[in-house]
Amino acid sequence: MIWTRKHLLDIESLSAEEINTVLDTARAFKSVGERSIKKVPALRGKTVVNLFIEPSTRTRISFELAEQRLTADIVNFSADASSFKKGETLKDTARNLEALNADFIVIRHSASGAAHFLSRVVKSSIINAGDGAHEHPTQALLDAFTIRERKGRVAGLNVTILGDILYSRVARSNIWALLKLGAKVTLCGPSTLVPETFALMGCRVTHDVADAIREADIIHLLRIQHERQRKSMFPGIGEYRQLFGLNQARLAMVRPDALIMHPGPINRGVEIESDIADGSRSLILEQVTNGLAVRMAVLYLLNGGKDFPEVSVG
Amino acid sequence: MIWTRKHLLDIESLSAEEINTVLDTARAFKSVGERSIKKVPALRGKTVVNLFIEPSTRTRISFELAEQRLTADIVNFSADASSFKKGETLKDTARNLEALNADFIVIRHSASGAAHFLSRVVKSSIINAGDGAHEHPTQALLDAFTIRERKGRVAGLNVTILGDILYSRVARSNIWALLKLGAKVTLCGPSTLVPETFALMGCRVTHDVADAIREADIIHLLRIQHERQRKSMFPGIGEYRQLFGLNQARLAMVRPDALIMHPGPINRGVEIESDIADGSRSLILEQVTNGLAVRMAVLYLLNGGKDFPEVSVG
Amino acid sequence: MIWTRKHLLDIESLSAEEINTVLDTARAFKSVGERSIKKVPALRGKTVVNLFIEPSTRTRISFELAEQRLTADIVNFSADASSFKKGETLKDTARNLEALNADFIVIRHSASGAAHFLSRVVKSSIINAGDGAHEHPTQALLDAFTIRERKGRVAGLNVTILGDILYSRVARSNIWALLKLGAKVTLCGPSTLVPETFALMGCRVTHDVADAIREADIIHLLRIQHERQRKSMFPGIGEYRQLFGLNQARLAMVRPDALIMHPGPINRGVEIESDIADGSRSLILEQVTNGLAVRMAVLYLLNGGKDFPEVSVG
Repeated sequence: MIWTRKHLLDIESLSAEEINTVLDTARAFKSVGERSIKKVPALRGKTVVNLFIEPSTRTRISFELAEQRLTADIVNFSADASSFKKGETLKDTARNLEALNADFIVIRHSASGAAHFLSRVVKSSIINAGDGAHEHPTQALLDAFTIRERKGRVAGLNVTILGDILYSRVARSNIWALLKLGAKVTLCGPSTLVPETFALMGCRVTHDVADAIREADIIHLLRIQHERQRKSMFPGIGEYRQLFGLNQARLAMVRPDALIMHPGPINRGVEIESDIADGSRSLILEQVTNGLAVRMAVLYLLNGGKDFPEVSVG
Repeated sequence: MIWTRKHLLDIESLSAEEINTVLDTARAFKSVGERSIKKVPALRGKTVVNLFIEPSTRTRISFELAEQRLTADIVNFSADASSFKKGETLKDTARNLEALNADFIVIRHSASGAAHFLSRVVKSSIINAGDGAHEHPTQALLDAFTIRERKGRVAGLNVTILGDILYSRVARSNIWALLKLGAKVTLCGPSTLVPETFALMGCRVTHDVADAIREADIIHLLRIQHERQRKSMFPGIGEYRQLFGLNQARLAMVRPDALIMHPGPINRGVEIESDIADGSRSLILEQVTNGLAVRMAVLYLLNGGKDFPEVSVG
Repeated sequence: MIWTRKHLLDIESLSAEEINTVLDTARAFKSVGERSIKKVPALRGKTVVNLFIEPSTRTRISFELAEQRLTADIVNFSADASSFKKGETLKDTARNLEALNADFIVIRHSASGAAHFLSRVVKSSIINAGDGAHEHPTQALLDAFTIRERKGRVAGLNVTILGDILYSRVARSNIWALLKLGAKVTLCGPSTLVPETFALMGCRVTHDVADAIREADIIHLLRIQHERQRKSMFPGIGEYRQLFGLNQARLAMVRPDALIMHPGPINRGVEIESDIADGSRSLILEQVTNGLAVRMAVLYLLNGGKDFPEVSVG
């Protein structure tokens, strides 16, 4: 096990070996969630602040439960960015939390770079829980973990990400993780939202959904988020569903062992048909379960990897 | 002690024996609240999600404290029903919580049947903390517990419930519990809100408050909740107070040992005069104390009744 | 160590000896915050309710962390005063919390006297976390602690408080604490906000900022809070900054060892220039750190001073 980082800010700067260390550690923590007593004392007496300057329910709950199962002391601080601006600066808020001896700050923020910024101004360990359209590293780690669990490997797989790539931090973090782990990544969606420049990262870009999904081992659907998309760039809901939504007709084209992922919450009948979301190929709820294990693993590793003997040092 | 249920969804489907098991267990937990260290490890490492899709303060706090005193890990998820509808469905929310290995989901929802619905779609244990105008089972259990503690029994007592019966989940759950335990139940209130059909359940229905309270051992007042009542059915506040409010003149008619209950929060000067609420016949604050003990008992029993040796297996 | 009080309602009624007991105890708790495991079991199984009937972030978080590090069970109850008025009375809310066996109620309220009122109507221990323009005792205790730590004493020091004194509970509590501990207190600000009547408390009043800060050992700046100030009494922001703001020109006048304090959150460029707030004379973040230690000490002492052997009985 190699792990020397203090922060988890992005996937871009991680090595494949570091990513695999998180995934290996998450495997041990997943078993904690299956026990009758779902708790280990690895973060006892440590203080974690969940600083959510952008609305979130599921990511916040997943982190909160991960922290509780590690026996941390937890403080939640939610505010929306507009009211936040009227008060003190993000830097001042963070330095106040540091002054309270916060060991960890889990930050979600609507501004790209917020997590990196915090890591430069305070001594606490920073975990990026999503910053603007930049990155959402724990989401990419839980997705890679889910793929590895179900397919046995990530390297060599065809993974298609479908939707609004341009404004998606989930897509961006996934692209980094998948490429580092050796997958072949195809991006698909409206041309305004999936520009050719992504080819420079090493992805294949297509605007033809049949072409995108036919050879895929994994089809990763993104949530259609109206609030964040520029109106002029985005087709209507009906048009998106017709052109890119995953329905039974499209599912008939894919490989028999292709699996479907989605970061949630899903829009039933928009980017995915309801019976596909609930079907046997869907990994959507496994992603949720794995997210908790991955977040426990991240907190555990950033804390120095102590007090949990079940993690094998390999 | 017999207890085989996984969920607490309503009172209607419970047997008298099951109700008494909760009340017997609650007696042991009430003593925990009187100790210097008010904590037992019965739910250590278990995850409880408080899913409140309808505003609540006192019921949420009572459940939260019950869970803390049982040493559970707790996540709170509050949303109001209107904003909830815009996002994912209740079923998807619940299945996501299940995927986080939630052992218990305590749900309050403005829709009747929400708790039953959840129990069919997820594997977690469901506790109904109030669903629409349907049931509020822990309220009825704490009321029965309070009566039994003060009167020594429930069977054979005359219990009068006074107020808006038709739209009250508190009334509905109380009627079921009281009848199952052998009490004689009288319902009283404006005829639009206390229809004769309640007689079919086995209650006596009257619209004459003097007749309703004269022989009562327990007078249970309901809160006048303007927001939930159909305007046309409900008399004005002043008219309600004059016709049905419990004042000193009416109190002079009742038995010397009659006791007053109210689920709270009270409207002083509307359904109850202030000095009666604070007087020696009032059980209102005892109900609050007992509510915590009853909720601890419910969680403990649904968890399999382990790790609390003070509960006598009878 | 002498401590016989059940509540912490204000500084006005404390003796110098009692204040010093809190400060001595806080020293031991400060070291807990510097440990790897920042937790002691002194309040295990005790219930603390944080009843915040006025918006607050930093004071609430500081109390919450103090309670967690003492291993208390915690319930948060936030509401704003206007919506609160529509529901039950403060007295009824408090008596309900008492009925839940709340050992401590930490109350912040927009009405002066709210904490004293609660202490008369319930048996729980009450801690005043700020009541209207009256007092904010834990703020004054943490300020006195910070001064004593940095200057070795409080007695004999010149302490200047600068800003809106009239409507500041921070100023009022600080004046009481500083005078009791033997400091010489100078108040300065616009004449409408620093009336001469404060001289009756034993303070020196001046409206000349140069005169106020020249001999000061400690310059305590108050936050300019627009929302709470009567418009007609308060100069504009620009005018305040020009007349009373702490800038480099004014800093050049002060003693070489003068230190700067501020209860936060700071308005950079209004009452304090940004580089002074971040400079070597600023104690602002130390105040935050010390606040947590002082609040742990207060809870510990009100709980009877048990289960923390590191506190030396002196």
